[in-house]
Amino acid sequence: MTDSNSKTIIHEIFHPKSIAVVGARSDETMEGDGWVARLMDFGYPGKIYPINLKASEILGLKAYPSVREIPGPVDLVIFNVPFRISDKIMADCAAKGVKAAHLYTAGFSETGKSEGIRLQNEVQRIAKEAGVRVIGPNCMGLYYPKGGLTFGRLLSKRPGTVAFVSQSGASAASLVAQGNERGIFFSKVVSYGNAIDLDSTDFIEYLVTDPDTKIIASYVEGVKDGRRYFDVIRECTRKKPFVAIKAGVTEGGTRAAASHTAVLSGRGEIWDSFFKQAGVIRVENLEELLDVIMAFVYLRRPRGRRVGIVGRGGGLGVMATDMCEKVGLKVPQFQSETQNKLEQLIPDAGTSAKNPVEPDSALTSWGTFYEEGLKAIDVDPNIDVILTHLALDVYGGIVKNMQAALDEAIDVLIKLSKQLTKPLVIVLYAGGHIETISAAIKEQNRCLEAGLPVYPSVSSAVKAISRFMNYHEFLDRIS
Amino acid sequence: MTDSNSKTIIHEIFHPKSIAVVGARSDETMEGDGWVARLMDFGYPGKIYPINLKASEILGLKAYPSVREIPGPVDLVIFNVPFRISDKIMADCAAKGVKAAHLYTAGFSETGKSEGIRLQNEVQRIAKEAGVRVIGPNCMGLYYPKGGLTFGRLLSKRPGTVAFVSQSGASAASLVAQGNERGIFFSKVVSYGNAIDLDSTDFIEYLVTDPDTKIIASYVEGVKDGRRYFDVIRECTRKKPFVAIKAGVTEGGTRAAASHTAVLSGRGEIWDSFFKQAGVIRVENLEELLDVIMAFVYLRRPRGRRVGIVGRGGGLGVMATDMCEKVGLKVPQFQSETQNKLEQLIPDAGTSAKNPVEPDSALTSWGTFYEEGLKAIDVDPNIDVILTHLALDVYGGIVKNMQAALDEAIDVLIKLSKQLTKPLVIVLYAGGHIETISAAIKEQNRCLEAGLPVYPSVSSAVKAISRFMNYHEFLDRIS
Repeated sequence: MTDSNSKTIIHEIFHPKSIAVVGARSDETMEGDGWVARLMDFGYPGKIYPINLKASEILGLKAYPSVREIPGPVDLVIFNVPFRISDKIMADCAAKGVKAAHLYTAGFSETGKSEGIRLQNEVQRIAKEAGVRVIGPNCMGLYYPKGGLTFGRLLSKRPGTVAFVSQSGASAASLVAQGNERGIFFSKVVSYGNAIDLDSTDFIEYLVTDPDTKIIASYVEGVKDGRRYFDVIRECTRKKPFVAIKAGVTEGGTRAAASHTAVLSGRGEIWDSFFKQAGVIRVENLEELLDVIMAFVYLRRPRGRRVGIVGRGGGLGVMATDMCEKVGLKVPQFQSETQNKLEQLIPDAGTSAKNPVEPDSALTSWGTFYEEGLKAIDVDPNIDVILTHLALDVYGGIVKNMQAALDEAIDVLIKLSKQLTKPLVIVLYAGGHIETISAAIKEQNRCLEAGLPVYPSVSSAVKAISRFMNYHEFLDRIS
Repeated sequence: MTDSNSKTIIHEIFHPKSIAVVGARSDETMEGDGWVARLMDFGYPGKIYPINLKASEILGLKAYPSVREIPGPVDLVIFNVPFRISDKIMADCAAKGVKAAHLYTAGFSETGKSEGIRLQNEVQRIAKEAGVRVIGPNCMGLYYPKGGLTFGRLLSKRPGTVAFVSQSGASAASLVAQGNERGIFFSKVVSYGNAIDLDSTDFIEYLVTDPDTKIIASYVEGVKDGRRYFDVIRECTRKKPFVAIKAGVTEGGTRAAASHTAVLSGRGEIWDSFFKQAGVIRVENLEELLDVIMAFVYLRRPRGRRVGIVGRGGGLGVMATDMCEKVGLKVPQFQSETQNKLEQLIPDAGTSAKNPVEPDSALTSWGTFYEEGLKAIDVDPNIDVILTHLALDVYGGIVKNMQAALDEAIDVLIKLSKQLTKPLVIVLYAGGHIETISAAIKEQNRCLEAGLPVYPSVSSAVKAISRFMNYHEFLDRIS
């Protein structure tokens, strides 16, 4: 659909005054993850109508045998039914005059089977004729914690500034779940599947002017109207960062996308050149997507690409430097004043006062070094951003007093982050021990609460910083 | 040194009949990580001589004021002293006629300071004149669990088949620690630092014929004799897989390497073309190094590069397919017999019976699908290797009964791994919850005990499989 009304209808879809769940289970419990329990648990403020042929009440709410029987108006209908009856349900929606339907139901054209294709066409025809707007089929639908909408009970209720528009349902749920664990929270998320009506283009166009959304992320296999998609993205990147996974780019991947959401994913080279030209931040997987989002949520813009690195392990410092420079960052020499100051702070043996800095071989004295050392690096005009990596198991296993030493080091970093003029990035490399992993999660959360970006590895951090800079440099070029 | 004797001397260094620790601390405890406690704890079978000016006994062993005072012969001396007295200690070693010295001591030419450079030259001169062979300075030395040698108390005592030759000490300790957590155990590891005598070339040459070693890994910044290094590596790759990180390849990285181990790391392009030509498996960081080692330790060679993928989440399947094909693997269509069989096993909606397969949306029924589904894929002539990915938090947070469902799925995979004709690779994606991480570690260990390779992500798995295939194809070409 290329109508100019799609922004209005999408706003209404995210703010329905009433929702009917067709196929609400009569045995739903408040402990479970059914569609009715989800809405109740997330504090959805509108009316909920469970639709079930036999039950008269579900979770204390009056149930109806059909959408047609609901007394008041219905804004959104969630289809949780077998695909074979989806045409009948859509006919009910049409008769009732509902605004929109989310078809969680799958089994349509993505199966490649004639029955699924026929039913999808039929559902599409009925909806279009009646003016019922459709999300899906074959998708998770909406997650909008501020408005009490969710596709999973276990996702966070805390609203944030990141939107995610995903053709894949599992990717939508995974990104939110993993994001929540990394201190990333969401404004509005939609998984839209086969997109027989509303497509990624429509949702992105809406989110560009959505005041809750500061960053737009997307997982896309294919779009219906390439021309309009490209126009919307070009408009988007001028206003908000757009981070995207384009899946289905190889021969096998294209085939896989066809049986996933029934799309033609299109020639890779066209997407490549368009994304580049439009300032789209392109990533390969969900982890990289979160890494880039982490930068946009937590990182202040550095003046340039020159990194001061502080961390334990000389070889790890050399590899970190190579990683930076391979992705287009720089690890320059310090000015002589900085160098002199650091040499006073750092003992001679098994260390380095040069960039990358290795202050000391023991984790136990890191707090002390950070206090003076990072201030010295902060005033060096050769440096734009400071990255410090802490490998919790660098010498194997769990160091005695690790937790206390780490607590102290992170205390100092948090304090310094309010004092330093340059942005600070933390890498907490947890290793494989459950004890070091637990400690890393604890310290990560402390850093995030203090507004400091945290990454699980130097390689993930520096790729994200470089992509973050790419976008800012793109904005500078077009302004 | 290019003498033909280095293989013999290295064998002797790994099997010393007696070790003196110069700078053994008088307050060492058996709970601590001192050099004497390490040897005792690891069951080193030879004589240990603590050297300390004041103590008469350390950890129940008679201590001596100097190496010269030791009554019997001394094969190896560990220097745990400030670099300023290293020349005096080396003079003691020369006078005593010790075979070899490991200089844990740092502060030499890597500091770039005249005093460090002068002392390094002096130590080198004394050792060379007296025929004392040297590991280091500025390094962790030896880890050889079978022989009771270690540079860390917390590393595993279990011997394995992987050797690691590392210019970086922290990288050596990290690789062993992280390897241990992933079921990877080591034959012989050496961290050799500034390499004023024995260099990576010497150690690799020795390991090529070491019967305990099946795979050789290396972290290298630079070598002294490029010609000889290249000859040794060429010989090595004909006999054993050689997996290497070449660090110090960018401008900043080259500078960092110079202040880390005082090497000239050389032009990147020369290393690139040599590694390619010699069949070296080149990786970028320690995680990738372990990923490749995992394949060589746990994976049977597949007949070809065609992967059958089974996992939850349609979008994750599309991305997994793209990842495979980007690194040179293939995700082909199944034969129609396989397709028909899988369609009988898999419900229509929200699933895929095609490659990549998505059997069911619930983790709880995976065991049931695996039982029949993997057997069907196993007999498909279009497929060479089966990869299954289990994302523990794919729909956000912890699924109820996750542990029981996972236990059952892994039970079936372990059972099947003995029955399938094709190799099986497991990806356990843990997510960010401490509960899912604990579950992933538990199931990983069960798989590893059963001999199944396990990876933390699809991307790490497929890169490693492709590199593993590259080496086997290299062997095919040269044979």
